[in-house]
Amino acid sequence: MRIALGIEYDGTAYHGWQFQEHCISIQACVDAAISRVANHPVRSTCAGRTDAGVHALQQVVHFDTEAKRTEYAWIMGINSALPDDIRIIWAVSVPASFHARNSAIARSYRYCILNRRVKPALDRHRLCWFYKPLDETLMQSGTQYLIGEHDFTSFRSAGCQSNSPFRRIYTIDVSRKDDCIWVSIIGNAFLHHMVRNIIGVLLEVGSGQHEPQWVDQVLKARDRKAAGITASSSGLYFSGVYYPNEFGIKKNREFNALPDSVKRVEIS
Amino acid sequence: MRIALGIEYDGTAYHGWQFQEHCISIQACVDAAISRVANHPVRSTCAGRTDAGVHALQQVVHFDTEAKRTEYAWIMGINSALPDDIRIIWAVSVPASFHARNSAIARSYRYCILNRRVKPALDRHRLCWFYKPLDETLMQSGTQYLIGEHDFTSFRSAGCQSNSPFRRIYTIDVSRKDDCIWVSIIGNAFLHHMVRNIIGVLLEVGSGQHEPQWVDQVLKARDRKAAGITASSSGLYFSGVYYPNEFGIKKNREFNALPDSVKRVEIS
Repeated sequence: MRIALGIEYDGTAYHGWQFQEHCISIQACVDAAISRVANHPVRSTCAGRTDAGVHALQQVVHFDTEAKRTEYAWIMGINSALPDDIRIIWAVSVPASFHARNSAIARSYRYCILNRRVKPALDRHRLCWFYKPLDETLMQSGTQYLIGEHDFTSFRSAGCQSNSPFRRIYTIDVSRKDDCIWVSIIGNAFLHHMVRNIIGVLLEVGSGQHEPQWVDQVLKARDRKAAGITASSSGLYFSGVYYPNEFGIKKNREFNALPDSVKRVEIS
Repeated sequence: MRIALGIEYDGTAYHGWQFQEHCISIQACVDAAISRVANHPVRSTCAGRTDAGVHALQQVVHFDTEAKRTEYAWIMGINSALPDDIRIIWAVSVPASFHARNSAIARSYRYCILNRRVKPALDRHRLCWFYKPLDETLMQSGTQYLIGEHDFTSFRSAGCQSNSPFRRIYTIDVSRKDDCIWVSIIGNAFLHHMVRNIIGVLLEVGSGQHEPQWVDQVLKARDRKAAGITASSSGLYFSGVYYPNEFGIKKNREFNALPDSVKRVEIS
């Protein structure tokens, strides 16, 4: 039997999602907790690895087990074996054809920028502090060049292991509430550091160092050196993964923001 | 010369605002940092003491000094001597007639309730987790009985040192966004534990244990035993203090939500 889990975590204390021999990872905690409830060793597969310090509102994993537990028992049992900063928020049994990574048709990330003169006392590991004034309208305007399918070589890290630099971005939304700027981004998948490198470029546009059209030049250069900094991991949240309806996995409200054409094409 | 400061803090690590001999307090940190920049011992006076674990988006204090510093130098100097979870967000010189507590005409608090089945991984020291489903419309409806000037004996702690149990509440707003319910409350001043005790009553109304009219019965009983639990300190934020315009202290957007009549009457 295959089980899928939705997981929320605060990534501050961890060296990222992925199991590593000599560091504390979120996967190591999650797999140990599942194994305890399943009563046999479990290795989970996730929808998308997150880097050190990156948070998740909804990571998705799957694992196989012969153990018979209700969905409620999986949630409560695993949570009782997890540290406080990792929580299972839902569990559902899925067909054997479901794969947390391969079945995903879209993923969403959010990025939080605190834009004010002084450093934060609250949420200091949960956002990116940027003291130069940012114009969110210019940032939004810069994002238009990234929508659609493109070669994102300029936005991938040197260590990115993907075979292809092509990814498709569906929507990017930049909005301000008081001192906070949130960037929400939905795409079919993301290269290593792609979201943080996009934010690095948008920070230069928002602070007036470059015109919004510069984003297009960076994209077309297909050269990481043409872009800007890699923005801090602390502001990044893996916010959702979306699967075809047949798997019965609840979509969050960001998926509803996708154009109907995208939802139809990708789900069919 | 009298200086006023706006202060943001994460109260998780502290035994409240107030200086105490054998515990770590926010005031002890703030006064030590101001003293270092002023180059003489300083004891600050705050607008409202917060309890252990309570946070502040904007506490206000004043202190007297002969030291000559620019507003920017006060902010940067004090922040460099403070722990990461306390930040000065503004500094302004004020007339000697200004008093952080006595000059205040209104104070606002916010309270954050996470309403879902599982405990939070994110923000776990920054909200109150409540697993029974809450109806925010019923909660809002229960708040109507509290608006205006009343004897809040039912909502004050046994240890409250105020001479009078009368306080005036201007607005209470209950709003939900996904799993989070925020309660915003503005009043002329608050008794000890008053906001947390109001939340305790609203939780019972929202979860259907009592009708909204019960709030009126609790209020009229003038008896702490008639009310409910004291809600957790972790969900509470001291969000703003409001002063007459003559002191030149910037009001935040909650003040703008007050009815004009209130603003006029109180400021005149």
